[in-house]
Amino acid sequence: MAQQGSPISPSTQFTSNLETQKRAMGSYAEPQSKMLNIAVVGLGRMGKRHVSTLLARVPRARVVAVCSAAPHEVEWARSNRDYIDFNITAYDNYTAMLDHPGLQAVWVSTSTDVHASQTIEAVEKGLHVLCEKPLSTNMDEVTAAIQAAKSRPDLKVMAGFSRRFDASYRDAYQKVKAGAIGTPYLIRSQTCDLLDETGFFVAYAKRNGSIFVDCTIHDIDLALWFLDNPAPKTCFAVGTLKHHPELAESNDVDNGVAIVEFYGGKIAYFLASRTQSHGHDVSTEVTGTEGKVQINVIPRANNVVLAHRSGMTHEVQPEYWQRFEDAFATEAREFVESVLEDKPVPLPLEGGFMVMKIARALAESLSTGKVVRFDEQGKQVDL
Amino acid sequence: MAQQGSPISPSTQFTSNLETQKRAMGSYAEPQSKMLNIAVVGLGRMGKRHVSTLLARVPRARVVAVCSAAPHEVEWARSNRDYIDFNITAYDNYTAMLDHPGLQAVWVSTSTDVHASQTIEAVEKGLHVLCEKPLSTNMDEVTAAIQAAKSRPDLKVMAGFSRRFDASYRDAYQKVKAGAIGTPYLIRSQTCDLLDETGFFVAYAKRNGSIFVDCTIHDIDLALWFLDNPAPKTCFAVGTLKHHPELAESNDVDNGVAIVEFYGGKIAYFLASRTQSHGHDVSTEVTGTEGKVQINVIPRANNVVLAHRSGMTHEVQPEYWQRFEDAFATEAREFVESVLEDKPVPLPLEGGFMVMKIARALAESLSTGKVVRFDEQGKQVDL
Amino acid sequence: MAQQGSPISPSTQFTSNLETQKRAMGSYAEPQSKMLNIAVVGLGRMGKRHVSTLLARVPRARVVAVCSAAPHEVEWARSNRDYIDFNITAYDNYTAMLDHPGLQAVWVSTSTDVHASQTIEAVEKGLHVLCEKPLSTNMDEVTAAIQAAKSRPDLKVMAGFSRRFDASYRDAYQKVKAGAIGTPYLIRSQTCDLLDETGFFVAYAKRNGSIFVDCTIHDIDLALWFLDNPAPKTCFAVGTLKHHPELAESNDVDNGVAIVEFYGGKIAYFLASRTQSHGHDVSTEVTGTEGKVQINVIPRANNVVLAHRSGMTHEVQPEYWQRFEDAFATEAREFVESVLEDKPVPLPLEGGFMVMKIARALAESLSTGKVVRFDEQGKQVDL
Amino acid sequence: MAQQGSPISPSTQFTSNLETQKRAMGSYAEPQSKMLNIAVVGLGRMGKRHVSTLLARVPRARVVAVCSAAPHEVEWARSNRDYIDFNITAYDNYTAMLDHPGLQAVWVSTSTDVHASQTIEAVEKGLHVLCEKPLSTNMDEVTAAIQAAKSRPDLKVMAGFSRRFDASYRDAYQKVKAGAIGTPYLIRSQTCDLLDETGFFVAYAKRNGSIFVDCTIHDIDLALWFLDNPAPKTCFAVGTLKHHPELAESNDVDNGVAIVEFYGGKIAYFLASRTQSHGHDVSTEVTGTEGKVQINVIPRANNVVLAHRSGMTHEVQPEYWQRFEDAFATEAREFVESVLEDKPVPLPLEGGFMVMKIARALAESLSTGKVVRFDEQGKQVDL
Repeated sequence: MAQQGSPISPSTQFTSNLETQKRAMGSYAEPQSKMLNIAVVGLGRMGKRHVSTLLARVPRARVVAVCSAAPHEVEWARSNRDYIDFNITAYDNYTAMLDHPGLQAVWVSTSTDVHASQTIEAVEKGLHVLCEKPLSTNMDEVTAAIQAAKSRPDLKVMAGFSRRFDASYRDAYQKVKAGAIGTPYLIRSQTCDLLDETGFFVAYAKRNGSIFVDCTIHDIDLALWFLDNPAPKTCFAVGTLKHHPELAESNDVDNGVAIVEFYGGKIAYFLASRTQSHGHDVSTEVTGTEGKVQINVIPRANNVVLAHRSGMTHEVQPEYWQRFEDAFATEAREFVESVLEDKPVPLPLEGGFMVMKIARALAESLSTGKVVRFDEQGKQVDL
Repeated sequence: MAQQGSPISPSTQFTSNLETQKRAMGSYAEPQSKMLNIAVVGLGRMGKRHVSTLLARVPRARVVAVCSAAPHEVEWARSNRDYIDFNITAYDNYTAMLDHPGLQAVWVSTSTDVHASQTIEAVEKGLHVLCEKPLSTNMDEVTAAIQAAKSRPDLKVMAGFSRRFDASYRDAYQKVKAGAIGTPYLIRSQTCDLLDETGFFVAYAKRNGSIFVDCTIHDIDLALWFLDNPAPKTCFAVGTLKHHPELAESNDVDNGVAIVEFYGGKIAYFLASRTQSHGHDVSTEVTGTEGKVQINVIPRANNVVLAHRSGMTHEVQPEYWQRFEDAFATEAREFVESVLEDKPVPLPLEGGFMVMKIARALAESLSTGKVVRFDEQGKQVDL
Repeated sequence: MAQQGSPISPSTQFTSNLETQKRAMGSYAEPQSKMLNIAVVGLGRMGKRHVSTLLARVPRARVVAVCSAAPHEVEWARSNRDYIDFNITAYDNYTAMLDHPGLQAVWVSTSTDVHASQTIEAVEKGLHVLCEKPLSTNMDEVTAAIQAAKSRPDLKVMAGFSRRFDASYRDAYQKVKAGAIGTPYLIRSQTCDLLDETGFFVAYAKRNGSIFVDCTIHDIDLALWFLDNPAPKTCFAVGTLKHHPELAESNDVDNGVAIVEFYGGKIAYFLASRTQSHGHDVSTEVTGTEGKVQINVIPRANNVVLAHRSGMTHEVQPEYWQRFEDAFATEAREFVESVLEDKPVPLPLEGGFMVMKIARALAESLSTGKVVRFDEQGKQVDL
Repeated sequence: MAQQGSPISPSTQFTSNLETQKRAMGSYAEPQSKMLNIAVVGLGRMGKRHVSTLLARVPRARVVAVCSAAPHEVEWARSNRDYIDFNITAYDNYTAMLDHPGLQAVWVSTSTDVHASQTIEAVEKGLHVLCEKPLSTNMDEVTAAIQAAKSRPDLKVMAGFSRRFDASYRDAYQKVKAGAIGTPYLIRSQTCDLLDETGFFVAYAKRNGSIFVDCTIHDIDLALWFLDNPAPKTCFAVGTLKHHPELAESNDVDNGVAIVEFYGGKIAYFLASRTQSHGHDVSTEVTGTEGKVQINVIPRANNVVLAHRSGMTHEVQPEYWQRFEDAFATEAREFVESVLEDKPVPLPLEGGFMVMKIARALAESLSTGKVVRFDEQGKQVDL
């Protein structure tokens, strides 16, 4: 099913070099083909899930390679039965992986600090890229990656904001576009994670920025989407530390509340939390002049209710994977389709720019205690 | 606030006799008066609640007397502060209570076996009557009471089916009447009680007939109401005993399921249970040719939800009082209003006749294992 | 049932004067009595409802008088059958009403601008007072009224924050106190009204202060209650005008979002809206270190669901009366009980002080665009 | 990706014959292989969906062939881009398809009348089979197919009751097995379809048996599963015709209600309907001695709620595909896994025997108006 490629085969390397040259010259793209050869970089929790998604939910994707900088992850991949059966080559070097023969696209699923550089490198090799959010916590890197993508309009370079691919969010969006709530002007959105007592989260947090950059970024993206890309006017945020005192070192909190006021009389307000007891609780309400649409206001793991001595109970998804597993499959399918059919990507990389700008303004407000203001041209101003 | 009546005052008795004579001649009714003097017979759990309802929720009712055959209940009433402050005379003899000076109406809230005779006696004394369901488990008594009521059209004699006074059932009924579901043809309704482990229920059950007569009677009443009084064609019921083996003696069950097919292509099916773990779970669904209306399909004690490690939980009303407290207040108010304003009662006594006929057919089916059939004139037939 | 008092009877006036003197000397209170003679001032929508509540839901209250400055309301009261039958005297002069013979308590239900002065006048005449929220939009008046109440510890003077009497809020509070969510640290609460297109609201708004004073005041009260009276640190608010441009004149908005950060790592955030399409939508979520409790997150008018071609629909209460009717009855009963039984009132007047302070800080933030800060002693500071 | 097989290639036919012989001798099964070559017979609505499921959700399945007796369906398959790209050969002859080179398994998704014969033929050719429910409406055919399967214990022959693969039903079942509701004794289950006004359903109904065989069969299966395979004692059913009068010809109804009483004090009761306005409404409640578990009692298409002038509305899945799409994928994956890993199938064919026996008893009760009874050995008896 997959190429016989191996990182140690000289002849393969040779072929690969030729291919890289072709791709670098912009001649590689082959829309209308049957299958897309794709690699996943990053074999953490999500990277592994992305491989599974590609194998099990994206019939026209062919996972040909994976890559990790962590030796135990490479080892794991090389001995995993699925990876063997489906001929997935495991690399320990990203540049080497990019030269995998026949490779057409890369799914960047590493930690945030290398998202931008890996995206740029892949684009420079002529590969299509699906990059997980956020592109970077550094606005210069964000800009550089967006520029790289723009310089290769023949390549599909897509930002991975999974909620835009969720069936409920899409249904809500279609209802709003169809006028079901009149003109939308207010959005409440929250990203609340189950308390992680394993220590995994604290280690993770060090590399992924403030709570507003890591969590609220999704809610900001939804606000921009549902409110039709308004320009931010004022940003204010507060927070508190309840379970992860270690976050104080990085000026972060484990619960944060924020308001973003936009020009044009539109408002968004957000909650982000790392410390929920009941599960992953991501919900959104969009209010318009003639109605309101709610997404997942009552989170439910499934449609089972248990009636017992103390009442009636339903369960909640433990984490975002259970909530958004289908959305990730849709995201992957649509990325693959955009390449194979040469269609625009659903979420161009530049979409992440304003999202990150607002997320960083909230992080700044949290640190300084002040309101962060922008003029109508998007320039930050002092009051 | 109340008359100075006392069961031992000779002069009061004398007055009372005169009044009784007047009432017996049909000359007593005084519509358009300000207040209704009413007595409650039966001081069990519900009788006490009815007194409270009249005091606290029915401004134009004046509770002047109560009566119980149980000495400890009479004693309790005579020492209860509310009963003293509001001048409520407690009798141990029903006939004596009926002669209470100025008495105009009686709320019969005793055990089922004396409902009919007490209703008849009160009517014969010229008193208005609100009689709790069921009128009787004996069809001859049912007929006799209905006849008594018909013989005194000047009196308001009302059957107490509390659900007809519940705001949700009324809203559903209005929606159905307004055509929201097209033509209704199917009803599912259940009366499920919290398991009572105190022994109260088993003692109670001995005097209140089969589960289909005691519980399902409400659901049958709803079926007749929502389906527009169709004539029954076939009745079938099964049951099981899970927690109250003592019921086997009286051929009863603690969980029963029943189907009633009506002429005209209408169907009702029912569940009655005494053994719920989570609370009082009474729900109804009415299906029509163009929609369905649900009442209380998810029972909720209030609007609180607790999110915790195992999910999200809401509580359920423990018993019918919490579910139908407001309905009892509405029932009492409308009965009082029908007397004071000389308006028809919302639920004439004869309404209970067909309900009881079907309930008894289900009890018979449960005993015999056979289908009970009726011809279109309502006569029971063998297959 | 009630005294024969009439505002024009000289003898009555005379008696009344004597009584007023006795009351002014602090000798009037008569706990343990059977009934409380109470008057309602203000016969607007809520005043009339309070009279009905007292008549129909508070058995130990005797409404003896009402008062309105609007001639048509006085006229209405004098010709209303209930008011006549229950001997309720209608006054057009508040001072005269306070002298009604036998009067013991007053329910102040006028517009906000006279709440404080009417409360003070009643207290000075030795009457118990239940005063609707807010006490005043002027902090000096608030202070004066609280002082007046404190000077008469023999009188019951209560603040009317109806949500504290709502069964769901109380159940949630008891759960929180019992430790169901660990230590509460975060509250989200909203007061959202159905859009009023009749013009009633705009007229009303002129006399009732900013949206944060009129609506959010309830949510602030809940925040202080559930979070155990924390001291405010920073207040920030934004708003928008969607349906009532007339509000711009008074620097008000019809949708406002606010954050209140408290000392001790606690946070509250609020939404207030006048422009909902679906009904009165008041909900609250309290998050603690080990769980979350929700109140009314899905508002439901009753327990009916209609299944139809476009899905399944339930209705929402149109306004706060349908949502809080029972709470008002509980509030009235507990006020009456606190007087008759000489028990502390559930909500002393001073409880409203901090609520109003925060509400006004939010209104100020809305006007200035700045964060309003307090030091730990509650003094407002500039950044 | 797939073999180059074509129905007209002689050499392929030859190979195929050899393979068929090998398989017929029981020597074909090759567990532990990487991929399963599977064919789908029947290209109606569900057959096409099964192909898509295998392509998009079952990574170790390789769809090599499809078959239909309808020329336009074969034509459609031959010109469908997915079928071409994935090398799926379309046959118009079932026997020919069974000889497709390398074929290992067949998914039987034709109309009910040929399920049994096609299953038997495939088994006789040494192929693994997944057969849609019901196996047959004829008990003799059911028995014959089960016998065929038993004669080839080396083959995986599985009954396709999709609900057993649904995540919510499985979660509920695990809760029940873990004792969450004590001992289950009562089940209410319904299969209610959206009214089909296209005429599709009426055409379909002619070949798929009574409503109790076509719809309730799922609910019966659930009853047997959750109640631990009790023996039926009495079966009773009624029905009505509301929208599809054509069904009268075949003694069928479009709404049916049924009770099945089991030995051991267990009860199941069912509703089946073809005429729902709001969508596909399949729900189940299992009551035990210490609790109740509900599955999908409030059907929801997704987690979106629209708040509007008339209330709050959520949508419902239009048909079983939207409700059970994931279940079909799980079913397919588990069937493929059982073959590749040589594990027992989740649902052996014989599981369908008792289900069909009860379904037919209900259909008989509907026709005759009588109770159908079984003795404890499962023999039908007259009363």
